[in-house]
Amino acid sequence: MSEYNANPQPRLYLDDLKAGDRFSSAEHALDEQQILEFARQFDPQPFHLSDAAARNTLFGGLAASGWHTAAITMRLLVTSGMPLQDGIIGAGGEISWPQPTRAGDILRVESEIIEITPSRSRPDRGMVKLRSETRNQRGEVLQLFVSKLVVFRKPAAA
Amino acid sequence: MSEYNANPQPRLYLDDLKAGDRFSSAEHALDEQQILEFARQFDPQPFHLSDAAARNTLFGGLAASGWHTAAITMRLLVTSGMPLQDGIIGAGGEISWPQPTRAGDILRVESEIIEITPSRSRPDRGMVKLRSETRNQRGEVLQLFVSKLVVFRKPAAA
Repeated sequence: MSEYNANPQPRLYLDDLKAGDRFSSAEHALDEQQILEFARQFDPQPFHLSDAAARNTLFGGLAASGWHTAAITMRLLVTSGMPLQDGIIGAGGEISWPQPTRAGDILRVESEIIEITPSRSRPDRGMVKLRSETRNQRGEVLQLFVSKLVVFRKPAAA
Repeated sequence: MSEYNANPQPRLYLDDLKAGDRFSSAEHALDEQQILEFARQFDPQPFHLSDAAARNTLFGGLAASGWHTAAITMRLLVTSGMPLQDGIIGAGGEISWPQPTRAGDILRVESEIIEITPSRSRPDRGMVKLRSETRNQRGEVLQLFVSKLVVFRKPAAA
């Protein structure tokens, strides 16, 4: 894994967040070996397993599984892109892959808080709608994920 | 991997599908080792890495990363659950995890075609909206994914 986290960020609670806040992750360099390894385990289709086999498909060449892009995105968010004190707990969201992720791509995640909804029934938490774009080194958007996260408030001092 | 594909199904084209068609995958038995391995690589958070650390979190015990559930779901669809001739090519969709996936769960994917939209600009393909529920051995829904797939028509005879 090629991520780094040179500047550990402060760990945030719901109280620290507001709509419009932006976060940027470290980078992850993807190579063919990683693409093949993930595909063999989780998405064994020709266009994820072999550049030659991928030539005559929609992808026109080896492409990473979308779930691989999603998994790398999660790692980037967890290790550098979204410093939540109690972790990144996703209830779900809307995901899309506007274009294939390729060997040689360097991935980075840019996130923005869209909306914060305090829980009515549970005063210790809220729902945060987060828009995360996974981009490569040319700024092309490989994945868009609008997620709903459960984020906790800072506990009252004991 | 514990999937099997005892009865290879016919490989389907867009022409073979209609709304309401249902598909059922083989099973995948998940254990703690798999959960930890995936989490270390892609989602290194306490509640995915250690049962003890997970006790005092929202999860109340070790839970698989939602992206691990998604990746296993994809493997089940590819190897047995959705026999498309040209592969499962997802443009995106809406995903949610109604409850955590646990060590010991045996996963299975039940899918249903919701809608088929032929492409207006490209007569060789269409968009298939597929609803896939990933359930455990108790029938509990661990993941719901409503995806948009690109599915090709049968090529005209040469």
